[in-house]
Amino acid sequence: MAEKKKTNIILFSGDYDKTMAAYIIANGAAAYDHDVTIFHTFWGLNALRKNEKLQPKKSFMEKMFGKMMPRGADNMPLSKMQFLGMGPKMIKGVMKKHNAMPLPDLIDMAKEQDITLLACTMTMDLLGLKKEELLDDIEYGGVAAYIAEGEDGAINLFI
Amino acid sequence: MAEKKKTNIILFSGDYDKTMAAYIIANGAAAYDHDVTIFHTFWGLNALRKNEKLQPKKSFMEKMFGKMMPRGADNMPLSKMQFLGMGPKMIKGVMKKHNAMPLPDLIDMAKEQDITLLACTMTMDLLGLKKEELLDDIEYGGVAAYIAEGEDGAINLFI
Amino acid sequence: MAEKKKTNIILFSGDYDKTMAAYIIANGAAAYDHDVTIFHTFWGLNALRKNEKLQPKKSFMEKMFGKMMPRGADNMPLSKMQFLGMGPKMIKGVMKKHNAMPLPDLIDMAKEQDITLLACTMTMDLLGLKKEELLDDIEYGGVAAYIAEGEDGAINLFI
Repeated sequence: MAEKKKTNIILFSGDYDKTMAAYIIANGAAAYDHDVTIFHTFWGLNALRKNEKLQPKKSFMEKMFGKMMPRGADNMPLSKMQFLGMGPKMIKGVMKKHNAMPLPDLIDMAKEQDITLLACTMTMDLLGLKKEELLDDIEYGGVAAYIAEGEDGAINLFI
Repeated sequence: MAEKKKTNIILFSGDYDKTMAAYIIANGAAAYDHDVTIFHTFWGLNALRKNEKLQPKKSFMEKMFGKMMPRGADNMPLSKMQFLGMGPKMIKGVMKKHNAMPLPDLIDMAKEQDITLLACTMTMDLLGLKKEELLDDIEYGGVAAYIAEGEDGAINLFI
Repeated sequence: MAEKKKTNIILFSGDYDKTMAAYIIANGAAAYDHDVTIFHTFWGLNALRKNEKLQPKKSFMEKMFGKMMPRGADNMPLSKMQFLGMGPKMIKGVMKKHNAMPLPDLIDMAKEQDITLLACTMTMDLLGLKKEELLDDIEYGGVAAYIAEGEDGAINLFI
């Protein structure tokens, strides 16, 4: 039996539009029967945050990062045309009008298609993000986990 | 006969400098006899816009996007050092001095080298961009078109 | 003897966090016995600048670029949460607290692991950067050098 092709996406960006692109490509590759992993690192981790105020024990700096960073996919800014927050609303408006899937739905779809959502443990450590603050059913790993997958990837992208 | 190697570039960015990098790599790969495709998605579509004011029928939101986004490669901003528009002029100035090709020429060269310029139909739909507003002789497709090419790519990049 | 796998990273970005990601991936791949090259182009060249004021002969425009761009890895801004310079200090603070390697150390480690650090000659020409302003023991090349490596890459990324 032939092995499945692999698509590995490093999601570094914390922007709504770039995250959307990452998840659209990931879902597309899964539909083409690829084995897909999204490695969420740095600001890309914000896509995996729960939209709840949790109060895990944190240092002052960790609390500051926690407050400054968006809590979950639906609260992320645009990479362009942010316009004091109007940009994301516009994009979400036209997406709704065109029946395009909003980001939280794209993430749900990724889970249903068995795409591996991986959180970078080094970044979690740096920014003080705790497992209880992130979505359930995700995996954890560092750069070694990425290289192990990436070196066999048919499609490798850094977004 | 050996098959040609493939280079597939997803151009997501609408920045002048990143678009330049994408087209320089694409033209370089074509010179090395690669089969090259640039998938223009999201703000990357602006590189394919004609520098003309066209008046296709559009909704209010589509008109707003149309006005806010740069019309064609020559009007795109820099990703860094934008300086109220001075940055692009400086870059174009030094490029001229060094006989480096400006972006519109790099796009023409890409066409001459038979690089496939593909516009993402999903983004066109979202942002309300019509075929008549984009350059002639380009192709159209969605994420499926990308995966089909990307999974055989020797070089796959997201820019 | 099997050939080593190759990881090729185009570092376009001049941001501290993105450059950190590039060097962490590069060092990780080298630890997995990959042959690794980082192609520093556009703002990515700033990571290779010496932190010294040198006075090579330059045109007015070259001097301006030289002044406006950060001199070396330790002076680069963040891609997000720059906060008038507070962001990089915060990141460096938490990195120190967690014993994470700061960027200049990651670059030293890359050299020790025989990662090839390559400076894009076309960009040097455009921005007026001279060899004497860049780190010692690096290599020089253009897009042809990239394609030659990239087309055999197991992992190719644009950062």
